[in-house]
Amino acid sequence: MRALVLGSDGTLSLVDRPKPAAGDECVIRVTAAGICGTDLELRRGYAGFTGVPGHEFVGVVEDGGAAGAAWTGRRVAGEITVGCGTCPGCRTAGRGHCDVRSVLGIRGRDGAFADYVALPPINLHAIPDTLDDEHAVFVEPAAACRVIQQVTVTRGTRAAVVGAGRLGLLVAQVLRAHGADVTVVVRSAARAALADALGLATADSSLAPSLARSFDLAVDTTGDPAGFALATSLVHPCGTVVVKSTFHGETPVSFSPLVVDEITVVGSRCGPFDDAIALLQNGSVRVKPLIDGRYPLERFRDAFDHAARGLKVLLLPSR
Amino acid sequence: MRALVLGSDGTLSLVDRPKPAAGDECVIRVTAAGICGTDLELRRGYAGFTGVPGHEFVGVVEDGGAAGAAWTGRRVAGEITVGCGTCPGCRTAGRGHCDVRSVLGIRGRDGAFADYVALPPINLHAIPDTLDDEHAVFVEPAAACRVIQQVTVTRGTRAAVVGAGRLGLLVAQVLRAHGADVTVVVRSAARAALADALGLATADSSLAPSLARSFDLAVDTTGDPAGFALATSLVHPCGTVVVKSTFHGETPVSFSPLVVDEITVVGSRCGPFDDAIALLQNGSVRVKPLIDGRYPLERFRDAFDHAARGLKVLLLPSR
Repeated sequence: MRALVLGSDGTLSLVDRPKPAAGDECVIRVTAAGICGTDLELRRGYAGFTGVPGHEFVGVVEDGGAAGAAWTGRRVAGEITVGCGTCPGCRTAGRGHCDVRSVLGIRGRDGAFADYVALPPINLHAIPDTLDDEHAVFVEPAAACRVIQQVTVTRGTRAAVVGAGRLGLLVAQVLRAHGADVTVVVRSAARAALADALGLATADSSLAPSLARSFDLAVDTTGDPAGFALATSLVHPCGTVVVKSTFHGETPVSFSPLVVDEITVVGSRCGPFDDAIALLQNGSVRVKPLIDGRYPLERFRDAFDHAARGLKVLLLPSR
Repeated sequence: MRALVLGSDGTLSLVDRPKPAAGDECVIRVTAAGICGTDLELRRGYAGFTGVPGHEFVGVVEDGGAAGAAWTGRRVAGEITVGCGTCPGCRTAGRGHCDVRSVLGIRGRDGAFADYVALPPINLHAIPDTLDDEHAVFVEPAAACRVIQQVTVTRGTRAAVVGAGRLGLLVAQVLRAHGADVTVVVRSAARAALADALGLATADSSLAPSLARSFDLAVDTTGDPAGFALATSLVHPCGTVVVKSTFHGETPVSFSPLVVDEITVVGSRCGPFDDAIALLQNGSVRVKPLIDGRYPLERFRDAFDHAARGLKVLLLPSR
């Protein structure tokens, strides 16, 4: 099969690889895969990953193997972390925090930028027929739903989302679906227009000083240290800042304001697939306007270039 | 009256100042005042404060003034933040987070390293006769109790306290009083012995790698960026790190581990005086072993030198 491989120097190349064999895992033919900010960070050295990247995907189970025979032929998305289920991490915080985990296309496990990918059946979620591939590929990033599990969001919660990229516009819609009064803090007019098209209120980041200390919750989705500082400035004392971004390297943080204002900072990663599927199905979260590129696997260079400056870009390996 | 004044260059000098006049505020004769880590940070430029420092005190109300006549003659400790009660900060997070606040000996208000200090009656708490001055002066730092208001601590919560200084040994005792299974992470044998004398379990910080990811909660009381990193390493995924320290300057923080492990970081400041008084009264929090210096006001230089290397040092202005 064809697979896109990330080398230790950050280069990507399309190579021929053996197709994974179904054993304890299901073999899935990848029909669409999204390029995520994390994929861009991996090329800069984040997590030290080499191998096949790609962790947002939808596909069809070609061979469910011994453990997942019932999955054969079904259209699925997949949770990206493979946990052991027995270690301290799994016991205290769930399989997503397994001490010896592998993570699809991020840590110790080849990902979905290939014709086929393998995952254990426990990781799979069936995609309803009413959800096409271009919606379904947003199930994993709608890990935006994770914020709702971690922070109390109720009708009228004043929430700011910093960043109007792929993730920001998903998080904003998820928060709105849970009753929050959401403002997306944007830097470009084009992104403001897009947020507007999704029915989201926006504020230009240059106006942030006038919005200081006026939100209950701010979510930083920028992947940029300045985004975290901005998010922190937006919440009132005793407010909460959720950090969704992962990025390579250290960030200088002024801790004293966090202590003096008793801010809570919450790291947030993967979310509940079922909730994401439900929000995508009922139309609370609109994703089609976020897709601005579709490429066959062999045009991966164009796809990554586009993703670095654009919104959600899809690779379509085995359509 | 005599007052210790901090200049913009970090120098301290004992000067003659007019005694505060009772108007809307009560005038309190200071009988004992504690030197806090924050006082040491103020000398390094934290908060840009100049004036009379000192915010941990016990004293006797000499003149309650118009608003606080009933307080005259009573022995009191005082909450350090003076809020307006009407601004957005006061409304969303309480007077302690007032947008236009002054803070005793820290921001826009002279503190307690003087013969007399003034505070509004709403800030005062009566000290029971059964609590002597050397206990009562620990009511403000037993803002350690704030942690309990912010984080769920129940019987069996596995808690690490990083740092066995003034604040660390108070926080550890407060957490223990609320049922937590507490380990104090210490750097010196002397501090380990002191923690031991207070009945607290300890672990040498050199053993921290073997304790990694094994606590539900870690509280950093070190005032040191390395302490925050250590605290973060000690909690399991989805665990909580409370930051009690305030310090001058920026700290380089690796955010990705916080996101990947979904750690919650909580800034924590001042706490409930009533809870602190109750814990001091019932003996759950023992403070006498933490006092290792008592100085008259005029020996402030010796007192500050001692506080920089020791535990709790008291100034005794108008004993």
